[in-house]
Amino acid sequence: MKIENIRPEDIEKRSFEMITEILGDKKVDAKFAHIIKRCIHTSADFEYADSLYFSEDILSILDTAIKNGAVIVTDTNMVKAGINKKALSSFGVEVFCFIADEDVTKEAKSRGITRATVSIEKAMKIGKPVIFAIGNAPTALLEICKLHREGTFKPVAVIGVPVGFVNVIEAKNMLIQSQIPCIVARGRKGGSNIAAAICNAITYKTVV
Amino acid sequence: MKIENIRPEDIEKRSFEMITEILGDKKVDAKFAHIIKRCIHTSADFEYADSLYFSEDILSILDTAIKNGAVIVTDTNMVKAGINKKALSSFGVEVFCFIADEDVTKEAKSRGITRATVSIEKAMKIGKPVIFAIGNAPTALLEICKLHREGTFKPVAVIGVPVGFVNVIEAKNMLIQSQIPCIVARGRKGGSNIAAAICNAITYKTVV
Repeated sequence: MKIENIRPEDIEKRSFEMITEILGDKKVDAKFAHIIKRCIHTSADFEYADSLYFSEDILSILDTAIKNGAVIVTDTNMVKAGINKKALSSFGVEVFCFIADEDVTKEAKSRGITRATVSIEKAMKIGKPVIFAIGNAPTALLEICKLHREGTFKPVAVIGVPVGFVNVIEAKNMLIQSQIPCIVARGRKGGSNIAAAICNAITYKTVV
Repeated sequence: MKIENIRPEDIEKRSFEMITEILGDKKVDAKFAHIIKRCIHTSADFEYADSLYFSEDILSILDTAIKNGAVIVTDTNMVKAGINKKALSSFGVEVFCFIADEDVTKEAKSRGITRATVSIEKAMKIGKPVIFAIGNAPTALLEICKLHREGTFKPVAVIGVPVGFVNVIEAKNMLIQSQIPCIVARGRKGGSNIAAAICNAITYKTVV
């Protein structure tokens, strides 16, 4: 059992080299390589080389939004914890998560809907362009699609990567078909780590 | 595209039913089913049905520790964010994460080691039995094994599920061979979500 002797500041770079080595002949779209490889980096799951969907012009849409005062709203505190706030703060981008707010919990209970759904409604009221980063709650995606269909609320973009079973694949397919600018992990996989990794990759821009 | 109409409080139960359906004839050890299925629930990755390693008597060791004032120390704030603190607080169990502490950052830099390594040293000084939940940093596992080998520090148990590439498989194998009570996700996979899911499964005890 050989432990590789490596300086802390070189670990990430070496990890990305190993990812590239393991990918081997498998081609990933160079335009999205920084996002795809960061998802693999956070999960060690090479399925993300194939499962990520990028809507048209998504990178420039996100880039413009981040430079123009958009906020990021996450569905869980884990996603928020995983986002590199230092990197975002240079653009003045704030990150919000409403899921554990007392008013959200109370309203969800009284209306018999998920806290994630109520959180989306709360995000509408921020009064700024919103990028959603959804790692867990398909009900959040369903609500975003519904509001968009009704014309009530148009988010700038959605990182739609909830993980799981009930309505997860269906909600992601609905998002892909909605015309909302989005990045989606097709299938059941995704999660807080993937949502945070995509947000970070967008901020960092380069592969490492 | 059919959206399943389901009450929020039934989503988790239905998810676990779907996991059991997808597992089909595949047997998972009934003693550990609540942990294995919660890892699958948080990742939609059925490899966890095979990759989790449980050292001897690990469940009773964790159970006793939680009832006797142990603390949980995580390697990242994402793991901490994902742990259900409400469930743990009924046992008086606190959760700590030192990775972003100013003194840890400073010391790591000056010594040329990772913040994760310094965090383990800080955890030693809490003066209570420690359960580590490591979702990201193989260097944390290497440090725990080193201190254990030297006889300097004996943690109660380690949830050793770092994800990634550099020294990840090696650090996990070292932990398995260390005689430290542990739960390990063998291979490259794991992560903050898996570390948090295992901690939560241990607290919830039952499958759902």
